[in-house]
Amino acid sequence: MKVQGAHYRSIQLAEDGWAVEVIDQTVLPHEFRLARLETLEDGQRAIRDMVVRGAPLIGATAAYGLCLALRADPSDASLAGATKALLETRPTAVNLRWALEAMRRALEPLEPHKRLDAAYIEAARICDEDAAACSDIGEHGLMLLHRLAAAKHGGQPLNILTHCNAGWLATVDWGTALAPIYKAHDAGLPLHVWVDETRPRNQGASLTAWELANHGVPHTVIVDNAGGHLMQRGRVDCCIVGSDRTTRRGDVCNKIGTYLKALAAQANHVPFYVALPASTIDFRLSDGLREIPIEERGSEEVSHIHGVTESGEAACVRITPNESPVANPAFDVTPARLITALITERGVCAASEAAIGNLFPEHARQTNEELRGN
Amino acid sequence: MKVQGAHYRSIQLAEDGWAVEVIDQTVLPHEFRLARLETLEDGQRAIRDMVVRGAPLIGATAAYGLCLALRADPSDASLAGATKALLETRPTAVNLRWALEAMRRALEPLEPHKRLDAAYIEAARICDEDAAACSDIGEHGLMLLHRLAAAKHGGQPLNILTHCNAGWLATVDWGTALAPIYKAHDAGLPLHVWVDETRPRNQGASLTAWELANHGVPHTVIVDNAGGHLMQRGRVDCCIVGSDRTTRRGDVCNKIGTYLKALAAQANHVPFYVALPASTIDFRLSDGLREIPIEERGSEEVSHIHGVTESGEAACVRITPNESPVANPAFDVTPARLITALITERGVCAASEAAIGNLFPEHARQTNEELRGN
Repeated sequence: MKVQGAHYRSIQLAEDGWAVEVIDQTVLPHEFRLARLETLEDGQRAIRDMVVRGAPLIGATAAYGLCLALRADPSDASLAGATKALLETRPTAVNLRWALEAMRRALEPLEPHKRLDAAYIEAARICDEDAAACSDIGEHGLMLLHRLAAAKHGGQPLNILTHCNAGWLATVDWGTALAPIYKAHDAGLPLHVWVDETRPRNQGASLTAWELANHGVPHTVIVDNAGGHLMQRGRVDCCIVGSDRTTRRGDVCNKIGTYLKALAAQANHVPFYVALPASTIDFRLSDGLREIPIEERGSEEVSHIHGVTESGEAACVRITPNESPVANPAFDVTPARLITALITERGVCAASEAAIGNLFPEHARQTNEELRGN
Repeated sequence: MKVQGAHYRSIQLAEDGWAVEVIDQTVLPHEFRLARLETLEDGQRAIRDMVVRGAPLIGATAAYGLCLALRADPSDASLAGATKALLETRPTAVNLRWALEAMRRALEPLEPHKRLDAAYIEAARICDEDAAACSDIGEHGLMLLHRLAAAKHGGQPLNILTHCNAGWLATVDWGTALAPIYKAHDAGLPLHVWVDETRPRNQGASLTAWELANHGVPHTVIVDNAGGHLMQRGRVDCCIVGSDRTTRRGDVCNKIGTYLKALAAQANHVPFYVALPASTIDFRLSDGLREIPIEERGSEEVSHIHGVTESGEAACVRITPNESPVANPAFDVTPARLITALITERGVCAASEAAIGNLFPEHARQTNEELRGN
């Protein structure tokens, strides 16, 4: 997608052809800066400190992190050690495991000295596949939006609410939840996006708003508390969010607060869509509430807020009393029954085991075989 | 309640006996500072700029604001003009109108030169009545909490979630939603409070957390997004919130985001209580969603956040992109059907017209007569 007129992906190789460049998402929207990753440790840090975030982009970064590790040492021990180190950076994103598993399958059978080239090829493939999947999600979602727009009176813009950032910054390109919005905007469909700020890290206020502003999509930032009220008043035509991990039955683990919006959508008869590539579906899991571990992140994400002062300098302020403890669960689980439909790269389907298995029969089959094999 | 060991009310007369001292709530929790009000304009500004906030305290401040206006000019024109000016400071809080109406009834029949003393007496009465009502709310709520605690295993602390600040800072003393919590804590009932930070103005993170820390009540600050997740996991035994305006049928208009918590409470079978004095019930209204105007506040409350830097200096940072518009509805309406019970100064009752009319027959009757008279 475009940044100040130039085309970027959220992750790409540097001009030297081996180092990895990512957009530093911790300084957006106030500054656009690329971060250069040269070592496994750089890759780990980028994921753990959320220089990169978003399930698909975490997977892509892990793949390139493995390339950087093999550049230093292509041995079996290095491959295994780097895979383990990368897996531990974020517990929720299933794409992380998925991407590292794809890398392992491609690299393990090779002799060490042949691994480096193969690793870069496989990482590039993962990135290209993600971009293509997101573009397809956009096309399928566009059809849904056309249908909703047709039901509105007199060309009024379609009001879409989104939570967190599931835009191109969360993927390699296009985004998941935002892909249908970009496709619709490009197709001339009048729309307006309600952007949840998404505390504690404000990925909506900082990343989604920045993306939409750069692409010229009409939008309004709101606090996370406001979405229920807007739905109650008929000011939201649909919600579209992303997913960090999806069970085979369609439960969705996504940024904390997603569940509250799904409850409000159901109570007010607002369609609630989740856009996701198959790489975020964990076919081993059925019950999201019981089986998905919820990452508890540091309290400073809640007690301190980053922004810029009036003079444009980056600054961090504390908002809670020093004496007050803070808890920071980073994700919640939205049960399948609250989800109107999933928007995937293969089409739109119900959030149910049958419908998901029908769209992705080979994934479902493979997981069944693995589970039987264990 | 206590601040660093000394007893304070949120509003009181200065030592000189005529100026009004309020706690400046815009600089909490980082600084404890009293603001001195000497004129009508000081009173208006204190309400509009949220130096004071919370429906009952807004009413009390308006009453004293009228005293200050009459001190300058006790004429009929001054009384009418000051009443109008104060009414316009905040559109949602019904206590504002209620307190000014009580003042008008006491003062209008008097000759101008007799009004000043009477005004101070009436304002003090409003404050004392509010403190007494809140104490009674605390006692009635305490019984509910005892019952919930009895159902818990082995003396585990009762987990109570609250939104915004409905503590003693929002009233004259004790608070509404926090009154039962203070009474329970003082009675030795083990409890723990989940404090919603309450964006955009963070009254939970700054005021409720500060109050609870000063009183020694165990608590944890969470982002507004986290409450649904905690309820889903059985980590909330009940919710207690306040109300800015309540219809005669029990719909509750309270800080934006309250409705989302009520939806989550219902979905997870968590009791949802609203604590309020009768002064917040607007007996003229039946349907909260249709009849209560929602205050839209300035966008800077969302785009900018106040806090302190590491060195302890007050600072304000912008968090949204410059290009992104912001909307800021300040309240939402929770329909009566989502409310388990109301906790009032006269007891606990269902959120229904019959139950409310039964507890407050004289208010209901008076409003009926007024409506017929109009």
